[in-house]
Amino acid sequence: MVLEKLLEPKSVAVVGASREKGSVGNIIFRNCLEGKCKAFPINPNAEEIAEEKAYDSVLDVEDEIDLSVIAVPAEIVPKVLEESGKKGVKLAVIISGGFSERGKEGKKLKKEIRDVADEYGIRILGPNTLGNILPAKHINYSFFEGEPKPGKISFISQSGALGASILDWSIEENIGFSSFISVGNRMDVSFPELIKLLGEDEDTEVICLYIESIKDGRGFMEACKEVEKPIIALKAGKSEHGKKASESHTGGLAGDSEIYSAAFEQVGAIEVVDLGEMFNIASFLVNQKRPGGDKLCIVSNTGGLGVVTTDLARSYGLEIPDLPEKVKKELDGVLPRIWNRMNPIDIIGDADHKRYRKTLDVLEQNDFYDAMIVISTPQGSISPIKTAKEVLEFYRRTNTPITTCFIGGRKAKEAGKILERESILNFFEPENAVRIIAKSKIK
Amino acid sequence: MVLEKLLEPKSVAVVGASREKGSVGNIIFRNCLEGKCKAFPINPNAEEIAEEKAYDSVLDVEDEIDLSVIAVPAEIVPKVLEESGKKGVKLAVIISGGFSERGKEGKKLKKEIRDVADEYGIRILGPNTLGNILPAKHINYSFFEGEPKPGKISFISQSGALGASILDWSIEENIGFSSFISVGNRMDVSFPELIKLLGEDEDTEVICLYIESIKDGRGFMEACKEVEKPIIALKAGKSEHGKKASESHTGGLAGDSEIYSAAFEQVGAIEVVDLGEMFNIASFLVNQKRPGGDKLCIVSNTGGLGVVTTDLARSYGLEIPDLPEKVKKELDGVLPRIWNRMNPIDIIGDADHKRYRKTLDVLEQNDFYDAMIVISTPQGSISPIKTAKEVLEFYRRTNTPITTCFIGGRKAKEAGKILERESILNFFEPENAVRIIAKSKIK
Repeated sequence: MVLEKLLEPKSVAVVGASREKGSVGNIIFRNCLEGKCKAFPINPNAEEIAEEKAYDSVLDVEDEIDLSVIAVPAEIVPKVLEESGKKGVKLAVIISGGFSERGKEGKKLKKEIRDVADEYGIRILGPNTLGNILPAKHINYSFFEGEPKPGKISFISQSGALGASILDWSIEENIGFSSFISVGNRMDVSFPELIKLLGEDEDTEVICLYIESIKDGRGFMEACKEVEKPIIALKAGKSEHGKKASESHTGGLAGDSEIYSAAFEQVGAIEVVDLGEMFNIASFLVNQKRPGGDKLCIVSNTGGLGVVTTDLARSYGLEIPDLPEKVKKELDGVLPRIWNRMNPIDIIGDADHKRYRKTLDVLEQNDFYDAMIVISTPQGSISPIKTAKEVLEFYRRTNTPITTCFIGGRKAKEAGKILERESILNFFEPENAVRIIAKSKIK
Repeated sequence: MVLEKLLEPKSVAVVGASREKGSVGNIIFRNCLEGKCKAFPINPNAEEIAEEKAYDSVLDVEDEIDLSVIAVPAEIVPKVLEESGKKGVKLAVIISGGFSERGKEGKKLKKEIRDVADEYGIRILGPNTLGNILPAKHINYSFFEGEPKPGKISFISQSGALGASILDWSIEENIGFSSFISVGNRMDVSFPELIKLLGEDEDTEVICLYIESIKDGRGFMEACKEVEKPIIALKAGKSEHGKKASESHTGGLAGDSEIYSAAFEQVGAIEVVDLGEMFNIASFLVNQKRPGGDKLCIVSNTGGLGVVTTDLARSYGLEIPDLPEKVKKELDGVLPRIWNRMNPIDIIGDADHKRYRKTLDVLEQNDFYDAMIVISTPQGSISPIKTAKEVLEFYRRTNTPITTCFIGGRKAKEAGKILERESILNFFEPENAVRIIAKSKIK
């Protein structure tokens, strides 16, 4: 499939590569050079770019070209696209923008591009995209400056600017990406095909979508259904006012918000309210399996926080199942006499890591829950780090979906880092711990 | 008023002060010694504690005592309390726990304590409290080890353990407290009087409450109404299941959740879902004034994020007022031709700090909103730090309630820190930025 080369082009022609540092054409070409693909700079006004021989036209390149990345002024896009067509290139990413701002002239240009693409059978991503970044494959043909970390999250964004800010943020946060795809104005390739593409991509485990509008609702739903990986979607413009703002922003119809939510629900996509929630859930799902149901077991050394977390779990639609009699009896053997004998399990303030372990051992043998939240607050000289290690051991043995709230100062933060290094997300806010589980569960 | 001495005791007797390092009686006494109050250790089995002369009984102390902090086994609390009574001490904080676990005997002990208190006119906080910490006044008569930073937030907690974990956390997060008060089992002094007390305390600007149950609903509501400072309340045990868990945890009736929410609403208290939200709002209100209404103005250099934030604002009940024609005209003069001419104001991706400034200048002259969210995502070489400084200048001039979303890597984080240093909270998640404004607004 020609689109596969979006994710792994062996050779890229950068049409509009530039010598001028900081320019879009320069950044794209340098990004390509540093990655694992051959890169050819196309610019009739340059001999050499970044010490590489420049070509007047893609037709002058002897090697086969998998992908043309086009970053030239809008009015010459049809011409350079035609050259790519003649060269036999079947895939183009059009970075150039400025079509919709040109009114009639822009429409005419788009029509010309479409005609060329049809004539030569070229698939087009864009126009007006940031380009794509494939950290897991060490390929970058975007004008994003910076090196996102490789990982297992793929992110398809309808806003290049918003995508760039997320990439910028992710570097410091140590969140890794398999691929970042900027769809731009979606003249041709759009969400459905890209979702299917990432569904087949072995480097991708979770697919995140930032959507302003969907053109082909049926195709979108079919693609989501077909793909077995978790899909997390943020739809901008859901409120009436937001819809108006979105239409003004994209120049397209944002559509009816209830329809979007219903569609996400129907195809099992996880709908989120902002990018923070998106990446919390994505990070969770990269490491942990999705909870198979809505039964949550809460273990806490602070009764009050167990109760707060229970309230939140109920408000997010999770169940807090009663403890089976057998479990109560077994916990009677390991917990102080005054324990509450219910879920949330209050293992009492003086619980050390051994009491956490014994409690988790009992829970390991009894399968009455789908996910777990473990809460730890600092109590005298008891080590949250040792407790964190017990939670990790339990997780490794059972593969139970878990989030934690290790709350407190330096030691609690250190415990949190130990947990996160091994794929358990730790939060100060029980709401976040609960929400991830509630939204990640299989529907 | 005798209770005022809870916040500023000049002299404290620590009954049950201990030489044994790490023991409750030792920590409390050392904490007292380090603070701005005279501290007398009472322990008939010691000559000296922490190099201070120990007394057999509070009756042996020559100085006047404002407050007895009692940390002796439950069964001798009545005796030492009586000694305090005879000494003329009118205020006691009973750290000792273990009354409710003793069944009949515990009840009898409590009755004895009550009788002594009645006879000598002693007001009691506790039993079973962590003790109080008054960072703004540099006084600490609790067994919390650590030094919370002074600030303007007062926190009354019905859970000592949860309170301790928050204090531990706050130190690293640079959140400052005026006072932390642990109410314990509320044999006598409870929320209403403490709320009024903090209402009069000049070091307190915001009052936070962690509530498991309220005994005197009418008194609570009257106190909240009387006090003019913002009150932020987290009620544990709101869901049916959480209520059951809370009752098991506290041994009291958690009450009906709708009644609590209605009561908070009626007295203008801000109800939150967890401690993260509580301290976000508290930090906001310590610095900024409460939005006078629900009209939000959004300024963003990324259209999509403006739309996402609009959706969130609507879902939290805020209005996004249309721009007055006058504002549109004025902004036409400072923004690129393609700006969206609506709120959320999309000032376009290439906006530098000067464009933010010009936009804010126009908004300063036009009063159609109650609060503002400013969004910035990284765009090429444009400096988020300079933009942050423009936002700060605007805030200083106008005193408009503002939160921000400066999203991105190192520079955006630096910009966020500059904003936060000067009292504007910056978030990665628009939801947090919106929620703070929605919940803080005057009802």
